[in-house]
Amino acid sequence: MRAITELSTQKHEELLDITERVRKIVEDSGVRDGLCAVYAHGATAAIMIQENWDASVPTDVVNFLHKLIPPGVWLHDQQDNNGDAHIKAGLVGPSETIPVIDGALGLSRWQGVFFCEFDGPRGDRRVIVTVLDDAL
Amino acid sequence: MRAITELSTQKHEELLDITERVRKIVEDSGVRDGLCAVYAHGATAAIMIQENWDASVPTDVVNFLHKLIPPGVWLHDQQDNNGDAHIKAGLVGPSETIPVIDGALGLSRWQGVFFCEFDGPRGDRRVIVTVLDDAL
Amino acid sequence: MRAITELSTQKHEELLDITERVRKIVEDSGVRDGLCAVYAHGATAAIMIQENWDASVPTDVVNFLHKLIPPGVWLHDQQDNNGDAHIKAGLVGPSETIPVIDGALGLSRWQGVFFCEFDGPRGDRRVIVTVLDDAL
Repeated sequence: MRAITELSTQKHEELLDITERVRKIVEDSGVRDGLCAVYAHGATAAIMIQENWDASVPTDVVNFLHKLIPPGVWLHDQQDNNGDAHIKAGLVGPSETIPVIDGALGLSRWQGVFFCEFDGPRGDRRVIVTVLDDAL
Repeated sequence: MRAITELSTQKHEELLDITERVRKIVEDSGVRDGLCAVYAHGATAAIMIQENWDASVPTDVVNFLHKLIPPGVWLHDQQDNNGDAHIKAGLVGPSETIPVIDGALGLSRWQGVFFCEFDGPRGDRRVIVTVLDDAL
Repeated sequence: MRAITELSTQKHEELLDITERVRKIVEDSGVRDGLCAVYAHGATAAIMIQENWDASVPTDVVNFLHKLIPPGVWLHDQQDNNGDAHIKAGLVGPSETIPVIDGALGLSRWQGVFFCEFDGPRGDRRVIVTVLDDAL
């Protein structure tokens, strides 16, 4: 079963918690055991599994990546001025695969699913969620 | 088929080789061709595919990440004092998907599966291994 | 369905665009909806989803990683003199899972699939592509 979830980002760089959306897709799928593959469209976006308890962790991630991969110093900036966003997106990666356990998304207590925006704000971001049934 | 493997970590930061555990789960599953999805529970842990020939590579990884993402300088440290562990876990990521080839875990000769502990030691770490059969 | 694609790398460090190979494997598989898992063999190689429009982004990625993880300063260099390549491979990771949508590889417009060589040139690199059908 596949579902596409659309989202708008508000900042140039931010992590958006999409855990509840993904959780609902899995529950609605009817799959009891299997795999949930989360995939972000866009070569300046990514998916990160991260703590969802308070806002400090996503902020730390944004600040860390901004310092590690600063804007304005890349070859690609001559084309699009977003070379840093591409490197961040490639390093974090657009795909995560999460087990489906007893009909629910198999995260641990403090894990959440975050959409990473590295070149926003954008109104047309898309995440594809594929829920695969384990026949065995 | 799904199996949960439990492990204890001994150090604050370390990479534990869980290749043989994952290999056995795949072999016991009876799946000939398909996919093995390895997923670490815990927002301060991760899974890394890495060389398993000698201990120097895992040590290099721990030292590199410790220097890149030092402890004690993050917003989240005011809550839990483990902001660095969360950033490391998010960057490395908790999921890897490995092909199942002719009934065996499809790693190359020098690849191993490592559990990454970034906030240990802990006695209750869990890794979920899902083996999906390829019906085609 | 599984296919193995072989490739030769020409440089010590480079990103090779394998998008069209992966796309063809998916189209030839006959799978309409499901998941395409791409996996790189070799503990000094990786898979990265990255923009495929011009060469500047892959070059930026190579330069960034080379500066972040320089050669010659790792414990493992005493064995193989490629400690940097292992750390890069582990950080980027060998696996990506991409949705299969209506019989095609479900990348967004500017996303491509890149094989990352961190210890080349090598004549015998292999990428395993597993296409799983979604029965539901």
